[in-house]
Amino acid sequence: MLCGMQSHDGPLARLRRGHEELVLDLLRKHGRLSRGELGTHSRLSRTTLYDIVGGLLASGAVVASASAPDAAPRKRGRPVETLTLNPEAGQAIGIDFARRGVHVAAANVAHEIVGSASEPHAADLTWAERTDIAQRLVRSLTGGALQFGALSAIGVGVVGPLTDPGGEAAYSRDIDGLPELLHKRFGVPVLLDNNTRLAALAESVWGAAAGDEDVVYLRLSHGVGGGLVVGGSLHRGAYGLSGEFGHITVDTAGAPCECGGVGCLETVASVGAVLDSYRAAGGRADDIAALLAALDSGDPAARDVLRAAGSQVGTVLAAVCNAVGPGVIVIGGELAAAGAALTGPVEEALNAHILPLSRHRLDLRQATLGEVGGALGGIRLVLREFSVLSR
Amino acid sequence: MLCGMQSHDGPLARLRRGHEELVLDLLRKHGRLSRGELGTHSRLSRTTLYDIVGGLLASGAVVASASAPDAAPRKRGRPVETLTLNPEAGQAIGIDFARRGVHVAAANVAHEIVGSASEPHAADLTWAERTDIAQRLVRSLTGGALQFGALSAIGVGVVGPLTDPGGEAAYSRDIDGLPELLHKRFGVPVLLDNNTRLAALAESVWGAAAGDEDVVYLRLSHGVGGGLVVGGSLHRGAYGLSGEFGHITVDTAGAPCECGGVGCLETVASVGAVLDSYRAAGGRADDIAALLAALDSGDPAARDVLRAAGSQVGTVLAAVCNAVGPGVIVIGGELAAAGAALTGPVEEALNAHILPLSRHRLDLRQATLGEVGGALGGIRLVLREFSVLSR
Repeated sequence: MLCGMQSHDGPLARLRRGHEELVLDLLRKHGRLSRGELGTHSRLSRTTLYDIVGGLLASGAVVASASAPDAAPRKRGRPVETLTLNPEAGQAIGIDFARRGVHVAAANVAHEIVGSASEPHAADLTWAERTDIAQRLVRSLTGGALQFGALSAIGVGVVGPLTDPGGEAAYSRDIDGLPELLHKRFGVPVLLDNNTRLAALAESVWGAAAGDEDVVYLRLSHGVGGGLVVGGSLHRGAYGLSGEFGHITVDTAGAPCECGGVGCLETVASVGAVLDSYRAAGGRADDIAALLAALDSGDPAARDVLRAAGSQVGTVLAAVCNAVGPGVIVIGGELAAAGAALTGPVEEALNAHILPLSRHRLDLRQATLGEVGGALGGIRLVLREFSVLSR
Repeated sequence: MLCGMQSHDGPLARLRRGHEELVLDLLRKHGRLSRGELGTHSRLSRTTLYDIVGGLLASGAVVASASAPDAAPRKRGRPVETLTLNPEAGQAIGIDFARRGVHVAAANVAHEIVGSASEPHAADLTWAERTDIAQRLVRSLTGGALQFGALSAIGVGVVGPLTDPGGEAAYSRDIDGLPELLHKRFGVPVLLDNNTRLAALAESVWGAAAGDEDVVYLRLSHGVGGGLVVGGSLHRGAYGLSGEFGHITVDTAGAPCECGGVGCLETVASVGAVLDSYRAAGGRADDIAALLAALDSGDPAARDVLRAAGSQVGTVLAAVCNAVGPGVIVIGGELAAAGAALTGPVEEALNAHILPLSRHRLDLRQATLGEVGGALGGIRLVLREFSVLSR
């Protein structure tokens, strides 16, 4: 199955992948086709078609049956063999190794999500222990019914920045040994990327921005991060550090940030920063749930700290939107649960600072995929990376 | 030749374009090949290859000769016909309709720039008059030797935002009638885009950022604008309004901007804004040349206004870079001619506000293509749009 990766190499291999996707796409649309019908629809030469179909049968992605169940019997000769997608064939697995939990999702060759599952764990687990959890969760997804003969790759999200994100060469010191371990356990190429960025990608495919090609995703959690979807693809930047909205300066005389900078958005709009502000204003809350409870009970201090954070978020988003021109902004993370108390001030500041021409062309939405977003993004990574035509 | 545009429609047409580009690419690499050799290298079926080559011969992109000049004579049968790219065939024309001048450039089927030309004109010319100039300039490029039988499209840059930029459907009220006029005169598809964005694209292909896939281009001129190149492609955003760096807020209590906003970068870093600051500081200069002369003569006020503008530019670029993660920033426009007096303060502010991890991964460069950048970007648009494999 490693041939999929080698297909990055040249135009011929790309054409072959294009032919494979054309055949899979026709089977997705028509359900069941004979080789002759596939030839007619695909206009591929007989030789090419037999070669491509042979490969797809061998991988388990496609299955052949002696004849269509409802076909009229032939007078003579062999019955016509027909081809269908193999619904039992898993084509892609996504895994998100978050700080304190593993999330997995699987998709079949019809590009349907078969299911997703999560398991929380202690923060100090080894990669081998986390990989055990991931394997167990994958097996649980379909009660073992899913075959992975057609599995083309797994897409994996991890915490923090990576060099060469999105492919097999992705690396950071924090994940040392993990790619090799996963490759050994699953026997297929392992594509790695930052899990926040994968969540951004997933929101643009299956979530709040489903069907939108240009999306800004902002995650307001213990850290503030994000991702850019550009023309339907995850944008990674020249050195794997795009979507760092949390480290855009909002106050040149502000507090020092973990990144080494000063006055970053993260210093005023992370969960910790908002809780600190609330406590400085005399409020009592140890976590976001307590702050949201105070908000619900009408506490003006809770409203004010969310307004202040939201206003800074909106100003940063306006700068990002002027640069990038997205159609949709998706806000996720624990802080997004504050709803309109946060998004109201975000929208106000956004409209005050965005190019007026853009003002009414932009939607602000709350993320919908929750904690499995990263794993779903991993699946999308695989389906995109191994698919020329199915964009 | 309109078939090129219809090729956007489906996978089959995309495969055909892929085949065409494969053949052109092999001829680019090998110079001269027989159909048999093309078959070996391309691995296309005989039927497909003859079909593709037939189309390329008909368009004039490829020429056939009875045999290779240095080939050994065959004992019997017809001489082997060999194929080469037609060096006389123009494949793409770029035109930039700037405010007060027309710029054109042309490329041949080998993707080489054949030449470029410019002509200034009064600001009040009609589109018909400007198109006359464009046609005359195109003809002048190669003394009439270039044939346009293989011309696949023209790429055209215009001032201001467009809806659906980058294709034939691009539109703004300001260019009403122009696309139809150009289509009539040149007889091929007309792809339109904003000329500043096309200049960004060109800098990433032939200019200061040649070979870089992720580029932020900022133009400091009478307006402040820019463009984003993402993964080697021009990024346009969901509604054609990306790269609007000039309208990122730098001072919420600042001066009103032409865009309708307040305190935009354009209000402090455009040519006009910098000249105003200089005069407010007691300097005398009617244009940038005079300001640069004052700078050269050691005038501290000239240095100070450029430092102030550069600092604001750097702060905005840091926000953009944190969001987008480019490998190179290119600064163009009249103000860039100030050199280190501007770029020094830009770099200082950039480094102060960019994510520290990104600090040493980013190059700041001065634009190199000058006024024909927009026309060259038009050519790139055509070569990309009509070419699947030659990225």
